[in-house]
Amino acid sequence: MPYFDTASSAPLHPVARQALQASLDEGWADPARLYREGRRARLLLDAAREAAAEAVGCRPDELVFTPSGTAAIHSAISGALAGRRRVGRHLVVSSVEHSSVLHSAATHEAAGGTVSEVPVDRLGAVSPDAYAAGLRPDTALAVLQSANHEVGTEQPVARVADACRAAGVPLLVDAAQSLAWGPVDGDWSLLAASAHKWGGPAGVGLLAVRKGVRFSPQGPADERESGRAAGFENIPAIVAAAAALRAVRAEAADEAGRLRALVDRIRARVPELITDVEVVGDPMRRLPHLVTFSCLYVDGETVLHELDRAGFSVSSGSSCTSSTLTPSHVLRAMGVLSEGNVRVSLPPGTTPQDVDGFLEVLPKVVAGVRERLGAPTAAAEPSGTGSLVVDALGKRCPIPVIELAKVIGDVPVGGTVTVLADDEAARLDIPAWCGMRGQEYVGEQAAERGAAYVVRRVS
Amino acid sequence: MPYFDTASSAPLHPVARQALQASLDEGWADPARLYREGRRARLLLDAAREAAAEAVGCRPDELVFTPSGTAAIHSAISGALAGRRRVGRHLVVSSVEHSSVLHSAATHEAAGGTVSEVPVDRLGAVSPDAYAAGLRPDTALAVLQSANHEVGTEQPVARVADACRAAGVPLLVDAAQSLAWGPVDGDWSLLAASAHKWGGPAGVGLLAVRKGVRFSPQGPADERESGRAAGFENIPAIVAAAAALRAVRAEAADEAGRLRALVDRIRARVPELITDVEVVGDPMRRLPHLVTFSCLYVDGETVLHELDRAGFSVSSGSSCTSSTLTPSHVLRAMGVLSEGNVRVSLPPGTTPQDVDGFLEVLPKVVAGVRERLGAPTAAAEPSGTGSLVVDALGKRCPIPVIELAKVIGDVPVGGTVTVLADDEAARLDIPAWCGMRGQEYVGEQAAERGAAYVVRRVS
Repeated sequence: MPYFDTASSAPLHPVARQALQASLDEGWADPARLYREGRRARLLLDAAREAAAEAVGCRPDELVFTPSGTAAIHSAISGALAGRRRVGRHLVVSSVEHSSVLHSAATHEAAGGTVSEVPVDRLGAVSPDAYAAGLRPDTALAVLQSANHEVGTEQPVARVADACRAAGVPLLVDAAQSLAWGPVDGDWSLLAASAHKWGGPAGVGLLAVRKGVRFSPQGPADERESGRAAGFENIPAIVAAAAALRAVRAEAADEAGRLRALVDRIRARVPELITDVEVVGDPMRRLPHLVTFSCLYVDGETVLHELDRAGFSVSSGSSCTSSTLTPSHVLRAMGVLSEGNVRVSLPPGTTPQDVDGFLEVLPKVVAGVRERLGAPTAAAEPSGTGSLVVDALGKRCPIPVIELAKVIGDVPVGGTVTVLADDEAARLDIPAWCGMRGQEYVGEQAAERGAAYVVRRVS
Repeated sequence: MPYFDTASSAPLHPVARQALQASLDEGWADPARLYREGRRARLLLDAAREAAAEAVGCRPDELVFTPSGTAAIHSAISGALAGRRRVGRHLVVSSVEHSSVLHSAATHEAAGGTVSEVPVDRLGAVSPDAYAAGLRPDTALAVLQSANHEVGTEQPVARVADACRAAGVPLLVDAAQSLAWGPVDGDWSLLAASAHKWGGPAGVGLLAVRKGVRFSPQGPADERESGRAAGFENIPAIVAAAAALRAVRAEAADEAGRLRALVDRIRARVPELITDVEVVGDPMRRLPHLVTFSCLYVDGETVLHELDRAGFSVSSGSSCTSSTLTPSHVLRAMGVLSEGNVRVSLPPGTTPQDVDGFLEVLPKVVAGVRERLGAPTAAAEPSGTGSLVVDALGKRCPIPVIELAKVIGDVPVGGTVTVLADDEAARLDIPAWCGMRGQEYVGEQAAERGAAYVVRRVS
């Protein structure tokens, strides 16, 4: 029963389990106390900090453990912004950061700060020059992920770090997705990560702040973890997290090579096995274990449900699988198709047989969903007038795109189809469909309800 | 090797260990995901929430898990204050709350809010009438601990809750020290607690917010735990915490009876075995397992060190055992002696033999420290003038009190001794010494350095 959603949470690494169990007996006391139980706890905490700092590539006294990766991000952003408040209140982020970063940015904006989002290209990467151009004299902090959590694209962190260093702006790297594979290149100033992404237990994040970076922890004072992470330290989990990080690093080179080949197979085979698929993200500069693709004319929720029934656990950035009714902000920022979106992130140990099984099941699942939704299978002959209007109001993804595809053959080349839709995904998916189909996306017009998306048939 | 500091952190309960290990295999996935691993994780989380809510005495949808008790307190106070901001920005706390409460109050004050501290009596308890008198039309929130973490005194929570209810003010109860022993009485509105205090693992706090209480979570948005606790849920630890809470509750009545008797023995025997000791806190309305006493003419740090060498792990509110250079705010608020302060908090399973061993070792340790410090053993005959000045500037607790005790016999009855001291503990301990010795504390005078404490010999 393959689990293919490591990017959400990785199963506990066997080394983490051993370390957790071994430290339950010695790691429960207060490490701030001077009696023997406290001293033992402190030794465990110090050793874990040394190991984690070595893996991160920083000094132990630059690294603190936080209750989660999210807490590390929140603390990093609020602390760095406050530490440089005299410089200004401008924050730079990329448009494809994790929600914990974007929510921190929104909080900063609500409190009177300003935020710039650096856009990404169609592969999901920022341009170092564009990022550098976003830095201003009043920029207090810049944030960039090491690799994207939804499409796996690696960001040019080292070059962005150089640009930030030249501008005197500290760069926070969100290394949540990549830290298992190796240290983050480049001259970053702050770094955050999350243990349960690398096979450590939940409940542990880490935050590194280089010496010399101005940092002013926010929230009520607390003396633990240099004042940067309030609350009693979860030492057994911290020990397990550090042990797991060392273990996955020891296996990283081999495992990355293996998984990269498996992902390459998925990237190559999926478009061969399924029509109307867009594989997204950078094919080369990417995480070794992650691949994302979107399938026209299916809804992500049903695909995930059917894959789960067949024993495969994957995730999706489609709007129809989440409660927000909008497609993932990452896919939107990239301008790629969101409907029928599937993210596959392989855990260490995934076998070629697991991947073959997935490649056998997936086409059947997609075909079944398309059949039930009445997706178009072949272009019809033009039969009618030069323009058509399709009313897809009230219909959820992928129906608006299916309706469009069904009637495009009914207008002559040069004619237009106008799709009325109020599902947010249509704004992303109709242009994406045009790109995949070689049709012209004319644009969006205001409408009484939802919006009107105009497409011209050109082939 | 008895560990007598449960009030700091309790050893992991065997049931917690079993539950943790059992849920490592099923609790690592994201409970927000719909695939089978996510559904299993969700089931574990839901079951833990049901169990914890039953133990707390609230509905499951009123309870969230937080990364720590400290995080629960921070979230409770900031969320409740923000939720009632239209009412006003006044916060009421007792003067003996945990530092996480007082630090939250300081943050609120720094942001323009107002804070009232309700004083306590010499036993450490607030008066319900005084607490009620502290409530104002602009009071947004009131906070009161169920029992004090340093001296064990139970607070009149039910009566204070009634007063708050009558004034329309929500009451947050910090139940960190008492939740193991039973639910909190009274009509509270919010409640916070910490799992590692009851034998659960570190990394889990809980926050209950009654339906109808206005609550507006602060900080960056996060969809987990009803938006009240950011970050990926630590499900194995949450499962273990809930299981441990049920287990300690099942044993609570028996264990409370047993430990209460052991604490009574300590309370009775310590003053018999050691001269110049003050046992502090309420002898009756108290936690069953906790007792605190202070010993004249010794420093807490050396006593703790010697007790640790003899195999006993205890803590202290003396200034000389901490980095703050001031005695615990609890002892200060109570106005009791802080020097040579020792807190004993017995874990479940403590045997009478453990306690007897402690009572055998303690007098020797105290006598040894007193001998080394040259503490006075008997009153000398008056020999000199009507007033004396003792210069204890630059000398740390307990030296100023020892110097005072050495010379008090040198002035005639009616004469005064003025102690010059710059150790903060002297402000508390010289009046406390006067109370214990039947001498008159005249008061404190300004001095070029530190302060001058004037004592009149009356016996």
